[in-house]
Amino acid sequence: MTQADRWMLPDGIAEILPAGAIQVETLRRRLLDLYHCWGYELVIPPMLEFTESLLVGMGHDLDLSTFKVTDQISGRTLGIRADITPQTARIDAHSFPRAGANRLCYAGQVLHTRPRTAMGSRAPIQIGAELFGVDSLSGDIEVMSLMLESLQAAGIENIYLDLGHVAIYRSLAETAGLSETEREALSALLQSKASADVHSWVEQNINDPQVASWLLALPGLAGGLDCLERARVLLSEAPQPLLSALSDLQRVAEALGQRYPAVKFFFDLSEVRGYDYETGLVFAAYTPGHGQALANGGRYNGIGAVFGRDRPATGFSSDLVALNTLGSGMAATAGAILAPEVSGPQGAELWRKVDELRKRGEVVIATLSDSAESDLHSRCDRELVLEGDSWVVKPRD
Amino acid sequence: MTQADRWMLPDGIAEILPAGAIQVETLRRRLLDLYHCWGYELVIPPMLEFTESLLVGMGHDLDLSTFKVTDQISGRTLGIRADITPQTARIDAHSFPRAGANRLCYAGQVLHTRPRTAMGSRAPIQIGAELFGVDSLSGDIEVMSLMLESLQAAGIENIYLDLGHVAIYRSLAETAGLSETEREALSALLQSKASADVHSWVEQNINDPQVASWLLALPGLAGGLDCLERARVLLSEAPQPLLSALSDLQRVAEALGQRYPAVKFFFDLSEVRGYDYETGLVFAAYTPGHGQALANGGRYNGIGAVFGRDRPATGFSSDLVALNTLGSGMAATAGAILAPEVSGPQGAELWRKVDELRKRGEVVIATLSDSAESDLHSRCDRELVLEGDSWVVKPRD
Repeated sequence: MTQADRWMLPDGIAEILPAGAIQVETLRRRLLDLYHCWGYELVIPPMLEFTESLLVGMGHDLDLSTFKVTDQISGRTLGIRADITPQTARIDAHSFPRAGANRLCYAGQVLHTRPRTAMGSRAPIQIGAELFGVDSLSGDIEVMSLMLESLQAAGIENIYLDLGHVAIYRSLAETAGLSETEREALSALLQSKASADVHSWVEQNINDPQVASWLLALPGLAGGLDCLERARVLLSEAPQPLLSALSDLQRVAEALGQRYPAVKFFFDLSEVRGYDYETGLVFAAYTPGHGQALANGGRYNGIGAVFGRDRPATGFSSDLVALNTLGSGMAATAGAILAPEVSGPQGAELWRKVDELRKRGEVVIATLSDSAESDLHSRCDRELVLEGDSWVVKPRD
Repeated sequence: MTQADRWMLPDGIAEILPAGAIQVETLRRRLLDLYHCWGYELVIPPMLEFTESLLVGMGHDLDLSTFKVTDQISGRTLGIRADITPQTARIDAHSFPRAGANRLCYAGQVLHTRPRTAMGSRAPIQIGAELFGVDSLSGDIEVMSLMLESLQAAGIENIYLDLGHVAIYRSLAETAGLSETEREALSALLQSKASADVHSWVEQNINDPQVASWLLALPGLAGGLDCLERARVLLSEAPQPLLSALSDLQRVAEALGQRYPAVKFFFDLSEVRGYDYETGLVFAAYTPGHGQALANGGRYNGIGAVFGRDRPATGFSSDLVALNTLGSGMAATAGAILAPEVSGPQGAELWRKVDELRKRGEVVIATLSDSAESDLHSRCDRELVLEGDSWVVKPRD
């Protein structure tokens, strides 16, 4: 590496410079304040943990996404977190175990060994909220509401909410008696939306014509609210967990539609996405012109079991940096006041004045001996000038 | 690892639960707002970079402190940052190169392979400010002032400021013609404050009696302002860079003493601490009863040279978590309002009321179907009650 390219950053790793950083910080505060007002309490989980804590029960994808290092103290393997959600489950299970509802939120850096998407970041700032101890639909609705509020707070106006339910596919796979391998094979086909491939796979592997017809219906069951109606017809004889899932989707859409009439709903009944830990309703928010989800989440009951406390859980998270890039409405910074460099008694008086202005929230930039030509001075729209015995703020030309 | 201990964290790694997290977040905002008001612009450097960018020219200690992983994309070695200061130097040199003064600040997680002190953290949240492009003493004074303001903002009242200057030892080592190995050997003895060992080392290795007497004076030159006076006598014939350093220390102490009359100054002329990149004034703040520095910094001119821009630089940083633990004056959280679970038209009206209260900054916690027994309810000192057609906030018993 030559001197000239030491400033280069790895692929998928970015630094955020002042203009963007102040926006990210503003949005971070706005969202954490929002979660606070909903009763979600901030936690700061550590950047690295034993892989046995970070990854157990979380599935293969998260394992492959996680950078591993050796702990020089214990000799054991540590992982740099690739997801904060499992950390909050550990906190709910052990270090902060409330009876009943436990609402937690967080904002922090995560790292991925590889970007999840073509142009994706390997260092998102994950911000989100998790609700433990509530198994009812009101919990899912609260979490989804908070996700939609987050997007609105980020200034994102045109929101599409994708809704799915992992019990739909799971209950059919169970009824069909699919092995783990078969389940994964069909799941991969459904995920890639390859309906011709789904068709031939089902024809080859499923003997029961009723179950086959249910599975074959899945790829077509995507769209607006009408898709739930079609599902109720096509899957009317399907197992009870599937019918409950359909009814949950309907109720969630009604409740959210009332609160957020501008949001467009999209259902995908063959949804089988994300880490393997989800167990119920899953959801993701999109905005036109941006291929990746702005935020997503779902129900992941039982995640705390590996930490000794099996609890209902649902939550969502988002990449603060992406949210900031897509959103709008972050205020531009106000101007600043330039202070001259003065010594003696007038200097002491100037110092008092500067201190007072800063305590009122004004930005005051001091002129320092050899920085008279600083670019920073162009940021100053006002300056401190001595009038008689006192320093006053005057506009600069 | 059994189920029962999966919640254990590695040594020196901690999680921060709600009561502490809200304090850390409050202090973080207060400090970043302080830096903003002084004209320091926020940057968010990445958690990991090529080791060639993170470590070149930064010395052996930082290298050993840095976790390394292999980049699966480029095959090169990446480091998880153990210090943010060199990252800001890279930003000043390349991505955000202002003419004249460039004031940058940051707050972010760093990781260390081993704790720096016996009970120290391996995952501090480093917060700090760096000033590039200013070589004059007013730059050092601004940065030290901002460090003292940070401690005051954290509610730390009893502050001791340790001041040193690396040019003192360096100019003597140069005059003595010490080799790199000899320089390090003597430096280690000075750092461990082993004056008997310093004495015998100097007797064995330094022939010039004048230089020997200067070196032998160093371990005794520690203390209050009187120590500068003694130094001017004992080292009156010493090389010019040493005399300039003494005069700089004097001027800094005078300027800061005027601004912060409650701060106690302590000089240590044999100070040779920290990473190898420091070049001038070095400083650290302490409070009684806490062995580690609360914050420290110094001048490190030339650090940007490896990135193609050799600039004067000075700055300081602190561990936000330690600062929060030691400080006081972070406000306790206010109470919260409990909202019942209601459906129908009254539910819609309740939702409007809840939304309005939250927008005013109140914490409103919704009752969710199966969380009636939640611990959270004890946080609520008020509740929403239906009176006639409207929802009103009433105190709870």
